[in-house]
Amino acid sequence: MRMYDLIEKKKQGKALTRQEIRWMVGGFVEGEIPDYQMAAMLMAVYFKGMEEQEIADLTLEMAASGDMADLSGIEGVKVDKHSTGGVGDKTTLVIGPLVAALGVKVAKMSGRGLGHTGGTIDKLESIPGFETAIPRERFFRIVNDTGIAVIGQSGNMVPADKKLYALRDVTATVDSIPLIASSIMSKKLAAGSDGIVLDVKTGSGAFMKELEDSIALAREMVAIGIAAGRRCCALITDMDVPLGSAVGNSLEVIEAIETLKGNGPEDLTEICLQLSAHMLHMGGKGEIDACYDMAREALMDGRGLRTLAAMVKAQGGDPAYILEPERFEKAPFCLEVRAEEDGFITHIDTALCGIVSVILGAGRSRKEDAIDYSAGLCLKKKYGDPVKKGDVIGVLYASAKELLGEASKKLLSAYTIGSEAPPEKKLVYARVTKDQIVRF
Amino acid sequence: MRMYDLIEKKKQGKALTRQEIRWMVGGFVEGEIPDYQMAAMLMAVYFKGMEEQEIADLTLEMAASGDMADLSGIEGVKVDKHSTGGVGDKTTLVIGPLVAALGVKVAKMSGRGLGHTGGTIDKLESIPGFETAIPRERFFRIVNDTGIAVIGQSGNMVPADKKLYALRDVTATVDSIPLIASSIMSKKLAAGSDGIVLDVKTGSGAFMKELEDSIALAREMVAIGIAAGRRCCALITDMDVPLGSAVGNSLEVIEAIETLKGNGPEDLTEICLQLSAHMLHMGGKGEIDACYDMAREALMDGRGLRTLAAMVKAQGGDPAYILEPERFEKAPFCLEVRAEEDGFITHIDTALCGIVSVILGAGRSRKEDAIDYSAGLCLKKKYGDPVKKGDVIGVLYASAKELLGEASKKLLSAYTIGSEAPPEKKLVYARVTKDQIVRF
Repeated sequence: MRMYDLIEKKKQGKALTRQEIRWMVGGFVEGEIPDYQMAAMLMAVYFKGMEEQEIADLTLEMAASGDMADLSGIEGVKVDKHSTGGVGDKTTLVIGPLVAALGVKVAKMSGRGLGHTGGTIDKLESIPGFETAIPRERFFRIVNDTGIAVIGQSGNMVPADKKLYALRDVTATVDSIPLIASSIMSKKLAAGSDGIVLDVKTGSGAFMKELEDSIALAREMVAIGIAAGRRCCALITDMDVPLGSAVGNSLEVIEAIETLKGNGPEDLTEICLQLSAHMLHMGGKGEIDACYDMAREALMDGRGLRTLAAMVKAQGGDPAYILEPERFEKAPFCLEVRAEEDGFITHIDTALCGIVSVILGAGRSRKEDAIDYSAGLCLKKKYGDPVKKGDVIGVLYASAKELLGEASKKLLSAYTIGSEAPPEKKLVYARVTKDQIVRF
Repeated sequence: MRMYDLIEKKKQGKALTRQEIRWMVGGFVEGEIPDYQMAAMLMAVYFKGMEEQEIADLTLEMAASGDMADLSGIEGVKVDKHSTGGVGDKTTLVIGPLVAALGVKVAKMSGRGLGHTGGTIDKLESIPGFETAIPRERFFRIVNDTGIAVIGQSGNMVPADKKLYALRDVTATVDSIPLIASSIMSKKLAAGSDGIVLDVKTGSGAFMKELEDSIALAREMVAIGIAAGRRCCALITDMDVPLGSAVGNSLEVIEAIETLKGNGPEDLTEICLQLSAHMLHMGGKGEIDACYDMAREALMDGRGLRTLAAMVKAQGGDPAYILEPERFEKAPFCLEVRAEEDGFITHIDTALCGIVSVILGAGRSRKEDAIDYSAGLCLKKKYGDPVKKGDVIGVLYASAKELLGEASKKLLSAYTIGSEAPPEKKLVYARVTKDQIVRF
């Protein structure tokens, strides 16, 4: 087999066979297929696409390129969730404990933040003592005991994705649905859960700006999950504006805690309940509506919060921070940003909010950058809210005063204030399952 | 400037600016832009194409990436010719001397053969003593004295093309008109002539199999030449079947000599006269029809042959071989290949004839391979000829007897014999100039 012939085949729009894909993924990981040939292949895939079977084959071969988690040491049905990235997305911190409290196991591997999007591992590490690198035996024990554990991805999982993603990142081939779908799903398959609920974001702050693209991506990912013998479905949720109010690591943990107490922002609470309902349904806990009510109850009566505290304790963190979030260290400097005119919030530039959080120290521009856990921002006015000139629209938190000026200007420019109230926005646009797409 | 942004721009089908192309070509030659990014760019160009201005800019920047020949030391108008490659194409050996004999200077840099297509430099080196690596001063003196010299491309000419071509060759991005046109024309521009007549082959043995593709390629190349301030036109000529009868180095030199004596194959003679007429016209020698008649006269009265002999002598070769071509060493083994049925020759697989010549030792599979100058084949039956079973259709020449068997089988399979005479074929399909396309 020659990589040249595979590039030529894809260039002509033909489908690669499972055998060809296996040879290609293996050869690339081993370094036998050079980056320049894979770069040409990636660009050909960008233009000519891949068939459903090809995408599934690619994903399975990528997943099998390194260690595959064997979760059979954990009792019961294990259900995973994946959100496609956004700003202020702390859903895992809410949903995981909620679902685990209701008897569905969550053995989760999460990532770190990069660029304007945050990562669950960074957020959890803002809790003093919390460990995210945990040996397999202990990880299993925690999930068996508390119902949930969240760790970082281990060293040799899905090396094909690491290598491919790095190459896509420098060759302008990130925005290809087959490549996005196989990248995400290869990690989910390798992580070993029985079921996967996908939270595919849509809107200006999401990777996929258009609803139809988000649905297309969701369809591909669900098809891959099913082809791999997993239970799989997707919700298309809004990321046109940031989710909840807080952006920044400990700020988001605090907001998740408030949500688990029933005091969270409406949008975040609703999306968490919907995603939880689908995970519970997948875990065999009944119909989706009934599961929604169960999740709501576990949120209102504090079972979710207690499960979060138990997980934090089991993973070496201090559970007192969960029960008394005022213990989290406050950033030494803060600044209120005020509206400069009257009107209604008609848009919030989500990516720009993410960039503001990076400027304040909450995120990374490069992989090596350190994070300031207490830095970030809280949006005090959200989409549709009326404002008067001088109203506080957001509060910035930082460890250095000089960071606040630029961040303040950028946050102001992230807000669009119009003279009329904008139309109401949906939180969940569609559900994609094996057989159907239901639009709400 | 970032290569990522240029790839993204081209991926979206936008045109790169001159400044961007300059930065990209320079960075690639310097090794600052890695192969994997250029490979992604090449594939994006394959799919999205380039605008005329972009192709011209790319070509000029490639030409300027190394040494540019300054031919101002040669008096008069210098006209170059380029054929896009084929089998049995010995036109340079006929046309160059003919045009030079009529007062248009030919200061030519040619290439070597690779794969199934031959190269003028290899053919000339089959003449004992002939030197193709000649210092500039002597090259100029020979052109001034005899009207023509043909040398190999010097070491540091068009390094951008060398590097780009090597990458295209392993990334399945060779067959892109903007990339083919810029590759060919960058070398022609760097070679420094005032005018360039392009001989764009079309048909099964050519790189461009379809007439319209050949015309499109010719249009791009002529546009580049004009944009670079050169005189430039193109003829689209047939390469559906091999040109002339001989394929192989000294065999082709002998056929060129016969053609310069007026005894050459009809197709070769006609194409040579037409190309010569266009070069003479470009060199200011009058209308094309009048130039055609001049060329024909110089061929019939031996002026072309004497100029070839003078050039061979000036470049260190033995002119006796030109005047008495029977001096060329014969291959020790030869085999007549005979028709196995009655009928008419309805097709000859040109590429396969080229492969037969490589099998016999006349060509190279890899750059490092040595060449057997006396090896090759002569086609005794051409397109349209009637044949009877047992007639000799071709003769094979080799230095080792065991090469003849496989070559014989392949040559037989290269011929298609039908029961009816095929339609007549054109030799020249079209002329492409700055302003128009004339189809014949």
